[in-house]
This record gives sequence, C-alpha cells and structure tokens, in this order.
Amino acid sequence: MTAKTAKPAKLLPPNPTIGVFDSGFGGLTVLRDLLPLIPGASYIYLGDTARLPYGSKSQETIARYAVSSAKFLEEQGADLLCIACNTASALALEDIRQALPIPVVGVIQPGAEAAHQAIDSSTNRVPHLPDSLTVAKGEEPPQTSPSVLVLATTATIQSHAYAHALNALGLAAIEKACPLLVPLVEEGWIDHPVTAEVLRIYLNEAFAEAPNLNTLLLGCTHYPLLQPLIKRTLAELNHPMTIIDSAAATAATVAEYFPANPTGAPATSRFYATDSIEKFQRLGSSFLGHPLSEVHLLDLGG
Amino acid sequence: MTAKTAKPAKLLPPNPTIGVFDSGFGGLTVLRDLLPLIPGASYIYLGDTARLPYGSKSQETIARYAVSSAKFLEEQGADLLCIACNTASALALEDIRQALPIPVVGVIQPGAEAAHQAIDSSTNRVPHLPDSLTVAKGEEPPQTSPSVLVLATTATIQSHAYAHALNALGLAAIEKACPLLVPLVEEGWIDHPVTAEVLRIYLNEAFAEAPNLNTLLLGCTHYPLLQPLIKRTLAELNHPMTIIDSAAATAATVAEYFPANPTGAPATSRFYATDSIEKFQRLGSSFLGHPLSEVHLLDLGG
Repeated sequence: MTAKTAKPAKLLPPNPTIGVFDSGFGGLTVLRDLLPLIPGASYIYLGDTARLPYGSKSQETIARYAVSSAKFLEEQGADLLCIACNTASALALEDIRQALPIPVVGVIQPGAEAAHQAIDSSTNRVPHLPDSLTVAKGEEPPQTSPSVLVLATTATIQSHAYAHALNALGLAAIEKACPLLVPLVEEGWIDHPVTAEVLRIYLNEAFAEAPNLNTLLLGCTHYPLLQPLIKRTLAELNHPMTIIDSAAATAATVAEYFPANPTGAPATSRFYATDSIEKFQRLGSSFLGHPLSEVHLLDLGG
Repeated sequence: MTAKTAKPAKLLPPNPTIGVFDSGFGGLTVLRDLLPLIPGASYIYLGDTARLPYGSKSQETIARYAVSSAKFLEEQGADLLCIACNTASALALEDIRQALPIPVVGVIQPGAEAAHQAIDSSTNRVPHLPDSLTVAKGEEPPQTSPSVLVLATTATIQSHAYAHALNALGLAAIEKACPLLVPLVEEGWIDHPVTAEVLRIYLNEAFAEAPNLNTLLLGCTHYPLLQPLIKRTLAELNHPMTIIDSAAATAATVAEYFPANPTGAPATSRFYATDSIEKFQRLGSSFLGHPLSEVHLLDLGG
C-alpha cells in the first residue's frame, strides 16, 4: 500500500459524469464538497435507501448491494465512481473495482491520509500525557506512535479497514463502533441531550482504552452532521481533539482525476433512491445543504 | 370489519407446517408463544435481516419485501402463514393474502382485540382524570371513550392500522412512533439509562397529547423485550398502565385454525435469515428464550 494515493495516470475529461453512491443520505456530504471542486461535471447520486442501513449487515450482503448499485451508476454513464459510504468502502471496494471498468474512489484511504496530514502538520507529534502518568526525573517519557480514534458503524469497525489504512501510514488506530449514531441522526436528534449522552458513553469507552487520543476521524458520512455536538461533548469531557471529516478529503481525491480549473456548464445533479422519494428529498436537503430537485425512484430488485 | 376475528371455517391438520415471518428477530417472540400452543407443528421461521428495518421504509418497498418472503415460506410447504411483524401486518397484509392461497394471520387485529378484552374486563371503563382537571360540584365528569396508547415503528403508525382496528372495536387510539426503540433493542441496551430516557420522552409526548391513558399496546415485536423497563419508567412517571403484548394474542389466533389438544411429535423448528447467520443465532436466542439451531442463509435476491 502506498503512503499516499497516487495521482491518476490518465486524466478524465473536464466535463465528466461522476457517480456518487451511498446506502442512504450521508454521501450527500461528499457531493456537497464535490460540487465546487469540479463544477463542470454531471453528478448522478444513488442512495440505496430501501436496503439501508448497511452498517449492521454482513460483508457478503453489503458487497452484493453495493455492486448492484455501482453497476447501475456505470450503466447511467458514470466516468468515475465515488463510493461515498464508509461501510461499502470498507467492505466492498475491491468487489466494486473488479465489477467495473471505470476508476472507483472510496472514502477510507482519503480519510486516513487526511488524519495523517493533520498529525504531521501538528507541532506536537507526541500525544500529551495524562496527569495521572508521572514521569520520574531523568527518565524519557514513554514514546507512543500517534493514535487516531475512528468512530464508525459496526461493519466498518469489524472490517478494520481504517486500522489497516492508518497503520500503513505509520499511525495506530483505536476503533470504536457507534451503532446508535446513525439512527439518532436519521431521527433528527442532531442537537439532543440523548445523542450527547450516547456520544459521551462511546467517547468515554474509547478514552478508557486509550487516554492519549487527540485526533478523531469521523468514519461514517452521517457523522459530520454531529460535529457541533461532538465538539461540545469533547469540551465538556475536557478532551479537545482535532476532528477529521473524510468527506472533504474524498472530494479532493476525486478532483485529482480531472484537469485543474475546468471550465464549462455549471454542475447538474440527478438523484436516485430505492425507497421513498419524499423522505429522500426531505432528509437529503439537510445533508446536501440545499433543497434537492429531481429525485427518481429506482428498483434494484429484491 | 368484524369486532372479533371469526373462527376459521375449516380446521387445518393437527400436525401442520406453520410459516412465521418477520423482518428480523422480533417475530421470535410470537414463535415462542406458538410452540406450547401447537406442539405437533413444524415451524419455518424467516427473518428478512438483509433488508431490515422495515419500519422506516415506504409501503411499496415493505409490500414487495414481505410478499417475496411470504412466497418463500409457502413454497417451503407452509399450511398457514403468521406475519409476526407489525410493520408488514400494517402495510402488506392484503398484498400477502392476495399473493398466497393459504390462511394468513397478522398481529394487528389480535393485538387490538387483546386491548379491547383488557379494557372490557377492567372494572373502571372510564379513564381516571388527571389531578389538574377539576370538575365543578354537580357537573358530570366528561365522558370519553377508552383510549389505547399504541407504540410502534414510524411506518406502522403512519398506516393507522391499529387506529382502524381499535376504532372498529369502539376504542380510540393515541398513536406514537418510537423509531429509536428498535435500534436500542438491537444494540442490547434493554436495561439502560439512555433507553429509559428515550422511553420517558416518547411517553411524556403521548401523555401531553392525552393524559387519560391507561392501556398501552406494544405495536412492535421488538418491544416485549423492553417490558420490564417500560413498567419501571411508567412507575417513575406515576402513570401505571395495563400493557398489551400482541405476541400472545396472535399465537392464540393462529391456534384457532387447528384442532384442540393436538397430539403428535414434538414441534420442530427451522430458521432462515437473509443476512448473517451468526448474528441471527446470537440475537435470536434472546427473543426466543432458548438457543436456536439450524439457521440457513437465504438469498431472496436484491
């Protein structure tokens, strides 16, 4: 594995069709970051809402669902596919790459690289020591490799995809499954005492395992909506951390496939969902940051 | 609609094959109640775990998933099908009945009848009045028809299936969607402060709408696992209620299709799941009350 995603050998046309896939709405945070980066593109977004959540299911089922979704986007003319779903990126990226003749970008590697960059640019590479750890005079303080706390769904955590990507960059990973955060976000409890309490429980469990954590990687595209609450909870726990959101890093990786400063028509977006269009439009706008138009209902079978 | 499910015109053989269907594990609470009632039967249970949860999806998607699952059980030789899933019963019962030549029993009607029976047998048919409601001397207290509080998934509540069934029995319904309870049960937070707080929020919202509630219908097969916590929360809120679990009532309705006191071999059970067998065996045993053997992985396509 390379320490940094290689620049693509061949650039794609400046006005490409880009397929963006997620099990639901979360991938819209990646699309939101793509729109200003590659303005001349046509975007096709597919949310496999009839079969979500992926995060609690098995590798075989996730791969089957993700490959059928990816094939649909390629058939619609996508020149490149962005898997804007951590669970599908963690468990089905190779299956999708083998099934499709076009470049496929996932969120794991860009997310890991963004964490690496954040730690590299930090002046203090050695994590701070907890007050309880006293160092005898003359002794060297114990050296630990910088650790990244990864919050993600159960399936993503069980795959250890982030741990592998971070380890290859010389970083250690503390992985914490947070199965209740997606339902809480989907319920709209973005700024709610119950969500704060659930976050406190998950974070405290992680800190009990590894107290010296100062970089937090949001390993699920639902979690960026919780960033204000996560920051507030960390402040209350007196444990400030640098928060890495892989959405922006993934969009930047996709942009490397296209010529810089492309000109052309403004971006257009077309949306497909495998379940209720009304719900997709309603919930999707909070992820994308503006209202969604033209959502099509899609039957992928099953 | 009849006020009471009619006794079936023709009894089925005493050693039948009974298909039991749920989107996941919750229907195992119905199977648990069926086993002692019809001991000579062969049971085939299908949990459509690859496509759960149904409760947050649209009617079209739920009907498509439920009909394909029901057809599988009929092809396996089921003489009768029990839809042990509130969401599928509320939104797809007629679709399933039209697709299959065998009797199909859902959970909504038996649950509503059990609530009716509980209120009928209660000595106090008029709900108690809240302390804040003062009745002037000489005036009659306001008469209200007994109301049942129904807790269920979003899809079940939006269908108003319980309201229709209860109205036909002369009862009013207060319907409350509880989308977070299924994820909390699946996370195993059965007896957890966060789950208690979520319950308090849902119950207080319902009581604010209708303070005179004294019958609570559990409209989701996941919820019986929360009964101890629900009772405790109601006690803390100083609001005792009679709790109706439709699992037992549904099992009794199914038993009416078979001769009384059947003799024969002890019941056998075969389990199918559309996602991870390991997870089904692990979680399923807590719903069934004893370990599950022989779980088969099933691909229903999609």
